[in-house]
Amino acid sequence: MSYITKSAIEVIEFVKSKGIEIRFSSEDSFRSDIVDLLNIYKTVDKIGVNRVGIADTVGCANPRQVYELVKTLKSVVSCEIECHFHNDTGCAIANAYTALEAGAKLIDVSVLGIGERNGITPLGGLMARMIAADREYVMSKYKLHKLRDLEILVAEAVQVNVPFNNPITGFCAFTHKAGIHAKAILANPSTYEILNPSDFGLTRYIHFANRLTGWNAIKSRVEQLNLNLTDDQIKEVTSKIKRLGDVRPLNIDDVDSIIKDFHTDVHTPRLAPTNGPAVDEESNLLDSVKRPRLN
Amino acid sequence: MSYITKSAIEVIEFVKSKGIEIRFSSEDSFRSDIVDLLNIYKTVDKIGVNRVGIADTVGCANPRQVYELVKTLKSVVSCEIECHFHNDTGCAIANAYTALEAGAKLIDVSVLGIGERNGITPLGGLMARMIAADREYVMSKYKLHKLRDLEILVAEAVQVNVPFNNPITGFCAFTHKAGIHAKAILANPSTYEILNPSDFGLTRYIHFANRLTGWNAIKSRVEQLNLNLTDDQIKEVTSKIKRLGDVRPLNIDDVDSIIKDFHTDVHTPRLAPTNGPAVDEESNLLDSVKRPRLN
Repeated sequence: MSYITKSAIEVIEFVKSKGIEIRFSSEDSFRSDIVDLLNIYKTVDKIGVNRVGIADTVGCANPRQVYELVKTLKSVVSCEIECHFHNDTGCAIANAYTALEAGAKLIDVSVLGIGERNGITPLGGLMARMIAADREYVMSKYKLHKLRDLEILVAEAVQVNVPFNNPITGFCAFTHKAGIHAKAILANPSTYEILNPSDFGLTRYIHFANRLTGWNAIKSRVEQLNLNLTDDQIKEVTSKIKRLGDVRPLNIDDVDSIIKDFHTDVHTPRLAPTNGPAVDEESNLLDSVKRPRLN
Repeated sequence: MSYITKSAIEVIEFVKSKGIEIRFSSEDSFRSDIVDLLNIYKTVDKIGVNRVGIADTVGCANPRQVYELVKTLKSVVSCEIECHFHNDTGCAIANAYTALEAGAKLIDVSVLGIGERNGITPLGGLMARMIAADREYVMSKYKLHKLRDLEILVAEAVQVNVPFNNPITGFCAFTHKAGIHAKAILANPSTYEILNPSDFGLTRYIHFANRLTGWNAIKSRVEQLNLNLTDDQIKEVTSKIKRLGDVRPLNIDDVDSIIKDFHTDVHTPRLAPTNGPAVDEESNLLDSVKRPRLN
């Protein structure tokens, strides 16, 4: 510990001398010796770091541990506290929120929680958690209607799908089935919704993707995907979906793929192949997977 | 309240007279009046229900509220406590775990958390959380190696994909990139893993799906998907993946689709169409989406 403390002081004083903002963080804070932790944080706080960081590097922390550690640390340091939580045991959102309750000021997030293994606290999920606690505050600070596009952008960049059960933007986050729930939702949305979909530029959702699918259901999905299709075009793609739905069951990804392919076809006139059979082979390969054809 | 109490007593006494086990649960417990709640639970406990249930019907509860309510309820009733948490704000796993810490005995779960809106506490995620707290106990009670097959079965039945970031079985749950993390993992897995993939019949994961993909990486993915292919067949599908990877970026779903298609082709000899052009049209439609062809 004395070696670590000595090195930390040396580095911090050098960085401070350059006038740069400093965060001092430990790794794997929840499996570290609490006395060692508090000692080093107290030392660097006295030297004058701008903030100290706690990291649940392996995703082992639970909310009550987080509350205790942040609360204790807050009594020891005068600088701000930043927290970093991994999601291995599904608690990254809850831990982040509990850290805020205990007095942490900054939380590390990423879009969709993208990070090592199954990731860190997701921005959208933490927004959902915070809005449930204080809607006015969150609405005044964040442009929530940008969340969906941001998540779609990042999902495409890293080549994953937005999970079906993602908070806020997952395809079923605001889905209601027939029966008592749907009836109550129509009468008074707050009966079964703690979040208001329109706060995020989203709408409630009608379950679809079978042979009885109506074009209004597909229209609402097209709007959710933020695609630009006319009513006639939506009717055309609905007919395609219904035909395929007669052949075999469709899942939501299938329907999305068909809609996106159709949208691409409508907005990108397809060019005839110009360089012979190799293109056909590529074309067949591309046909065998689901993403829109790159013309 | 007196009407509700009167009805509850009447129903409970009738059901008890038939010798049937009884759970008495409220809905939306975390937005209900605490005095009303405790009154009714105390009353039904005295009549002799087997357990009382708390339900976070709208997914608004946070871990510290859960701890307080379960702890308070435990001081009021002598029967067992069951809890039901929705995941709208991403806290269903953390809330369930915190309820257990506070003395709840039963937690409602479903496979992949399938349920209204974005679901309830998922079985796999709660296992991950519990195993981080007491591995020996969880290993002795649950057949964890069945989790993957169970999740795949349910995902196919309800037509969703297992989310990329699902605890334990998400494709990147045990994925490690090159660099300091991977080096430390090789030296000592517990450095960056709180869960041991082999406890679930899983293996650590090599990032793949690009033109440099080796067949050993594809082999490990084939094993993760629990498919039966020979080394020669794996080399053949790897070559197909590499060819397509040269044309455009592949995501994990693309690679999985190619592997599954290949597996279906190998194990189901394809029949020639016997009923004319309609089959070709269906076949083209099927080619435009990603799921294995149904012969």
